[in-house]
Amino acid sequence: MPPGGSQLSGERFTATYTITGDPVEARARAVDIGYEQTVEFPADLVPAGPIRDQVVGQVVDIQQTGPSSAQAVLSYACEDAGGELTQLLNVLFGNTSIKPGIRLERIDLPPVLLAAYRGPRFGRLGLRELLGVPRRPLLCTALKPMGFSPQALAALAYQFALGGIDLIKDDHGLADQPFAPFKERVQACAEAVQAANAKTGFHCLYVANVTAPADQLEERAYIAKALGSGGLLVSPGLVGWDAMRSLAGDDRLSLPVLSHPALLGSFTASPESGISHFALYGQITRLAGADATIFPSWGGRFAFSREECVAIVRGSQEPMDTIRPIFPTPGGGITLERLGELKAVYGPDTIFLMGGGLHRHSPDLVANSRYFRELVEMM
Amino acid sequence: MPPGGSQLSGERFTATYTITGDPVEARARAVDIGYEQTVEFPADLVPAGPIRDQVVGQVVDIQQTGPSSAQAVLSYACEDAGGELTQLLNVLFGNTSIKPGIRLERIDLPPVLLAAYRGPRFGRLGLRELLGVPRRPLLCTALKPMGFSPQALAALAYQFALGGIDLIKDDHGLADQPFAPFKERVQACAEAVQAANAKTGFHCLYVANVTAPADQLEERAYIAKALGSGGLLVSPGLVGWDAMRSLAGDDRLSLPVLSHPALLGSFTASPESGISHFALYGQITRLAGADATIFPSWGGRFAFSREECVAIVRGSQEPMDTIRPIFPTPGGGITLERLGELKAVYGPDTIFLMGGGLHRHSPDLVANSRYFRELVEMM
Repeated sequence: MPPGGSQLSGERFTATYTITGDPVEARARAVDIGYEQTVEFPADLVPAGPIRDQVVGQVVDIQQTGPSSAQAVLSYACEDAGGELTQLLNVLFGNTSIKPGIRLERIDLPPVLLAAYRGPRFGRLGLRELLGVPRRPLLCTALKPMGFSPQALAALAYQFALGGIDLIKDDHGLADQPFAPFKERVQACAEAVQAANAKTGFHCLYVANVTAPADQLEERAYIAKALGSGGLLVSPGLVGWDAMRSLAGDDRLSLPVLSHPALLGSFTASPESGISHFALYGQITRLAGADATIFPSWGGRFAFSREECVAIVRGSQEPMDTIRPIFPTPGGGITLERLGELKAVYGPDTIFLMGGGLHRHSPDLVANSRYFRELVEMM
Repeated sequence: MPPGGSQLSGERFTATYTITGDPVEARARAVDIGYEQTVEFPADLVPAGPIRDQVVGQVVDIQQTGPSSAQAVLSYACEDAGGELTQLLNVLFGNTSIKPGIRLERIDLPPVLLAAYRGPRFGRLGLRELLGVPRRPLLCTALKPMGFSPQALAALAYQFALGGIDLIKDDHGLADQPFAPFKERVQACAEAVQAANAKTGFHCLYVANVTAPADQLEERAYIAKALGSGGLLVSPGLVGWDAMRSLAGDDRLSLPVLSHPALLGSFTASPESGISHFALYGQITRLAGADATIFPSWGGRFAFSREECVAIVRGSQEPMDTIRPIFPTPGGGITLERLGELKAVYGPDTIFLMGGGLHRHSPDLVANSRYFRELVEMM
């Protein structure tokens, strides 16, 4: 009888969902998730035996959290997802993402499944070693605006690096436009940062945005590495989560990866559907190999709450067997004036990503960068 | 002065957004989108000249549609996106996806930008030619449940093909699991469909699911082609939109592509944010090269409204210069009993995707498939 129990190890992973509904509805919807995410077949047509008993997702716990909402834990056979991140995401939330009133809150993967993932190559400790910064929060800024020439962007990069910024990334909108073609931009910016490092003795990294069409992504990453980029900026919402994992896991690249949230906003737009901040910007981003997870901090141009940002911090460091903790990287409207308040919440293991705010303090970007660094060193 | 107007052609594309807010708020938010999606820089810091005048997105129209909602049309320089689908999606909705109360409704790309996209290789006419079905709606079903062996899945495929189904796709949850490893499954199912075609004289296509990790995706597609798969099932929410475009555009594959909505649900979960059904399952799916756009029809297990489904049909055939119209492919709970009602709305240029429903009519799947075909031929 297919599938034959011999292929099933009995190892299972779990996912926790918030489900809208009264106790009866919520339980029925939880059971339904188990079918929808696996066999996608009416329950009465599913063959008895290992498919019904093990392949189908099982409700292992359900708690009503209010008159019309419950939290359910479902377990799935590890074999349903195998070692593929694409299929893992599919089992966790593929079709169910299309059903209203169901939110993926968290995932819990056993070591046997996590073993298929390298996760972040550097993580917090590795990135600190690369940068030579053992304790304080790290400083990051972005090269912008779109429209600048490679030389203009490189001039900015030089000033930021001279002033002591740790990570200087391309703005996520810098692709391969005629204003600043990819190779010319990366070469100019990498050289500028190296020249500044030679003066300062710092280990500032230039991080090229390699987000690109599928058939050019790997090539861009190799070119970036060859031209001296010290890291890779990737938007998983644009290239797919697994493409980020593939780049992060590539030993020939061996570069830290910063994950950018472009096009991911819809996942967290509603508290009743989508994927939680904790799981999306924490757990999944880590599993996909990013060393830093960029997200818009509360109090800036975006609308994440302080609580949602704290959930991301938790997700970035939640125990996940051998998968390393990564840096929460709040951005999206951070200013020098808010650093104290932000540090108090985010703690020292944070990368502060300041874009426009770093241009505000004075017209002298070297001085502004130094001031940013002094503020953080004093914390 | 960077960037120098010489790089800017003056050609622009537009995007229409629904924005929450009273007239004053809505206009301010519309202007803000133009900055956020391009320079991502405070307006007063953007250099005067071509960057401010052309690179920044411009509000070209705004109409209040209610006391607290407006529709705004923004235009962007074609050079902001270049010929890259990843960057086009980034400009259309990257960061703005994270802002509440803004929905991407539609896109309008000029021929000079569309020229960078092949779009669907077959489209409606091409797929009809492949299948030898000039006029009636096409019939599609899925091989399931997950857990079945390659032989069990192939036995299903044989029966469906014998009964006259046009397109037999893997369930989107069939990846490379131990129950049915990719190569064995594809080989068995492709052979089964060919054997049935030899009997019937029909041109049924087996469509293998090649959704896979980034570093295996292309290889799976080539293997599928080599083993006799007549098409590719791809979930762009899992692999990224551009990965689907890359497969669809690959002349060495030259296979029709069916797009599956797994993990895309969050984009359409709220009427006030995300991306419209029209743009997501219509325009963007076409631009990304799918020949058929699978979505859950109203009245089944999911919650799309009839109006939303009709919007997808519009998006699947909306004039887009040389980009071909594609097949709306409603699924997600379609039954034999509902075919008349569905045909009246979807019209003849539709692929009806019936999974579980096709198992319900009787235990004889060949007979059920014949009945499905007869119903559709009589319409």
